[in-house]
Amino acid sequence: MQERGLLIVFSGPSGVGKGTVRAKIFEQENNFKYSVSMTTRKQRPGEVDGKDYYFRTREEFEELIRKGEMLEYAEYVGNYYGTPLTYVNQTLDEGKDIFLEIEVQGALQVKQKKPDAVFVFLTPPDLEQLRERLVGRGTDSSEVIAHRLEKAKEEIRLMSEYDYAVVNDQVDLSAQRVKMIIDAEHFRVDRVIGRYRKMIDSRDL
Amino acid sequence: MQERGLLIVFSGPSGVGKGTVRAKIFEQENNFKYSVSMTTRKQRPGEVDGKDYYFRTREEFEELIRKGEMLEYAEYVGNYYGTPLTYVNQTLDEGKDIFLEIEVQGALQVKQKKPDAVFVFLTPPDLEQLRERLVGRGTDSSEVIAHRLEKAKEEIRLMSEYDYAVVNDQVDLSAQRVKMIIDAEHFRVDRVIGRYRKMIDSRDL
Repeated sequence: MQERGLLIVFSGPSGVGKGTVRAKIFEQENNFKYSVSMTTRKQRPGEVDGKDYYFRTREEFEELIRKGEMLEYAEYVGNYYGTPLTYVNQTLDEGKDIFLEIEVQGALQVKQKKPDAVFVFLTPPDLEQLRERLVGRGTDSSEVIAHRLEKAKEEIRLMSEYDYAVVNDQVDLSAQRVKMIIDAEHFRVDRVIGRYRKMIDSRDL
Repeated sequence: MQERGLLIVFSGPSGVGKGTVRAKIFEQENNFKYSVSMTTRKQRPGEVDGKDYYFRTREEFEELIRKGEMLEYAEYVGNYYGTPLTYVNQTLDEGKDIFLEIEVQGALQVKQKKPDAVFVFLTPPDLEQLRERLVGRGTDSSEVIAHRLEKAKEEIRLMSEYDYAVVNDQVDLSAQRVKMIIDAEHFRVDRVIGRYRKMIDSRDL
């Protein structure tokens, strides 16, 4: 019997640097696929449909929600963001690992539906450094920053729902840690015991 | 507050090569201490008390059992083997990891007393290769080999009690996998969440 792939849910509070760490992870050779998110927000210059996001209309997105074809989704600043279920299930069925980089609320939805996934929380070293990151981006007003910080604090309180917590002190190191966690998870007894079933059930030799 | 060290229980069936993989793990630099076992069997030429084993009399060993100072123990071919509790607890209290290489029955005793330890099962690829290993040693009669194989089969059936299973196909690879598992375990949320408690509980910024 084909072993199923591993579903890896990589998440963390607003502004912690999930995208940067994820990009670093995918720079190097690895054995897992990236699940591209779907959104109804406008495509920005330079963004590629099917690579950065699947860009869909609000109607198309809501149709997928109705049909139960979203693994998780949320509305954020008036736009939907989410993970289509089909590609995730196909990849797992092929025995390949799939990597989701999603928001905390989405991760908790995945936990309901796929409790055997591996949940990794990327955390800032402390709130002061998170605030500096948000300010440093230079793209948001102080009001938006305050709002994002409030949201981040709520999200950090959900850390205990995850399996692992990795601190984002250095992007390279954080990426390495996440890859190591994924590698190690492949040796969990409940994932590999099927390989040894014959030996375990053997009555003679 | 000082974080506690990790208790690593490395075990597997009779003849699988636990000692060889353990020696390979400790060849390189690492952050964990090795817990030397205690035995009542006779010291062999070349063996060092306190390094290979703590060699004790039957009376001394039974006194420790009575006083509840053995983390685990078993009697095997007329001799006691076991792990004294004091050194294990001291090491964990100092925030250092400690590595036990013990028999399957002993591992199950540790699981009762220290359920938060990490349990790694070293498994042979299949029973045929385990038999070849036992025959290849050239030290045992065919009767002893048959007995050890029977015992090994019973032990393999207990794999599901462990957290991880690592196949001993190549000593180097197996040692690497065990080290990786230990490294990854340090990022488990329940082990690290204390570091972020201040941030999680923060009401303001």
